[in-house]
Amino acid sequence: MATKTISLLLSVKLPLVQTRRKYSVDVVRKLIFRQLFDAGSSTYTYLLADPGTRECILIDPVLEHARRDFQLVKDLNLNLVYAVNTHMHADHITGTGSLKLLAGCRSVISRRSGAQADIFVDEGDYITFGQHRLKVVSTPGHTSGCCSFYCAEQGMAFTGDALLIRGCGRTDFQEGNPETLYRSIHTKIFTLPDETLLYPAHDYKGQTVTSVDEEKRLNPRLTRSLEEFVDIMNNLNLSYPAQIDRALPANKVCGLYDVPQDLKKGL
Amino acid sequence: MATKTISLLLSVKLPLVQTRRKYSVDVVRKLIFRQLFDAGSSTYTYLLADPGTRECILIDPVLEHARRDFQLVKDLNLNLVYAVNTHMHADHITGTGSLKLLAGCRSVISRRSGAQADIFVDEGDYITFGQHRLKVVSTPGHTSGCCSFYCAEQGMAFTGDALLIRGCGRTDFQEGNPETLYRSIHTKIFTLPDETLLYPAHDYKGQTVTSVDEEKRLNPRLTRSLEEFVDIMNNLNLSYPAQIDRALPANKVCGLYDVPQDLKKGL
Repeated sequence: MATKTISLLLSVKLPLVQTRRKYSVDVVRKLIFRQLFDAGSSTYTYLLADPGTRECILIDPVLEHARRDFQLVKDLNLNLVYAVNTHMHADHITGTGSLKLLAGCRSVISRRSGAQADIFVDEGDYITFGQHRLKVVSTPGHTSGCCSFYCAEQGMAFTGDALLIRGCGRTDFQEGNPETLYRSIHTKIFTLPDETLLYPAHDYKGQTVTSVDEEKRLNPRLTRSLEEFVDIMNNLNLSYPAQIDRALPANKVCGLYDVPQDLKKGL
Repeated sequence: MATKTISLLLSVKLPLVQTRRKYSVDVVRKLIFRQLFDAGSSTYTYLLADPGTRECILIDPVLEHARRDFQLVKDLNLNLVYAVNTHMHADHITGTGSLKLLAGCRSVISRRSGAQADIFVDEGDYITFGQHRLKVVSTPGHTSGCCSFYCAEQGMAFTGDALLIRGCGRTDFQEGNPETLYRSIHTKIFTLPDETLLYPAHDYKGQTVTSVDEEKRLNPRLTRSLEEFVDIMNNLNLSYPAQIDRALPANKVCGLYDVPQDLKKGL
């Protein structure tokens, strides 16, 4: 991209969170992108930044890695504007609360999540940072408040616990509903362009990314009929989530329930 | 990239492994890229593919994940031409031998590695797949045969165990030499363009990628003087690598030492 074009784009002022705003700039903007991993809960955290304005966001940060993630923000000379959750997690405590204290950012989650946050988003809203933006796509089924975030300009989407690589989020607790999940994935994710890269909230096999094309062709659950899918999901017999009793109360209050004391003092 | 340009590029026949060949095409080609992780040894494996010719390579595959990696090759409708190692690993058994049996690919390693392979490469050689190519850059110090692979067109390099994210490979066994490693990194990696993305063979903190700029500014070991670096490396007091006695004999023979029996029968 020519420097002149970048300067021109940077002169366009956009509100940080947009609601159903028409967006006509069709160039692919440069993006700083980092995928981060928590081995304890197999959670992926994503850092996305605009190299021009230095604004960045974190998606699904994990409490135990708040310092690592904040250090990366500082190392890259970025300004963390939002810590965003795809949903109210049951398998780990969000790092959102700690990051608010460390970086002075604002927390974002869907209105239907049942969790507290500084900013609530709904279907069709945009989360913007610099010249980039993510469209909020409601994809309930794992929980009622689950959202995916779609960046059409970059051809990438963050699917949270709705769609995983060759799998999907469980539907047997916390408002889970397999029929709802099936419809969410088929109508909201599988209708994105085939080449769209999909970044999930978890992977347990060392895989980092997939695509709409792959999951439409190869997902062992989602390639089945609705009836077969519901039957599979209702018979997974999964164990009770190890951290749920600790994670849900914390995540209801943006992770501020269990923030390390030294973070509360500010760093 | 316009379709016409892609077709034109695909009509250019290039040998699969080139030696010091002049390469003047300056467009950025599309690349299929996947980063894969082995939690046991914290090893990253990389799949790179040309979406036009469907040729792909794997860098640093791990024995226990040979089936996963081969399945991904098949899922993406790719043809695995090379299984490449950055060096003879001491911390895991390479998946190269298994992948040769599974996919019929050829193994590649540096001539100075001391390991067997189908193809040996030296400084300045190119490993090519479709319209992409990686330059072999000799970066000894962790071992004498350590290589990095640099793709100038994509602005990315695979640094093996030479340079890790905010760290580097140990130098206390298997021909390790801290002075050699320091010079390798400063003269061969830190001289690449600042924005070059660096993909290491390992990370132990859930980080996936770094850049030349970051490591030049922030690497706690490599920002020191040569003397300080040597002193740090000679006083790490690391424990004996857990898998070394099993891994080195296997990796000397391309990982074929310990290939699962059912792979030997062919799949």
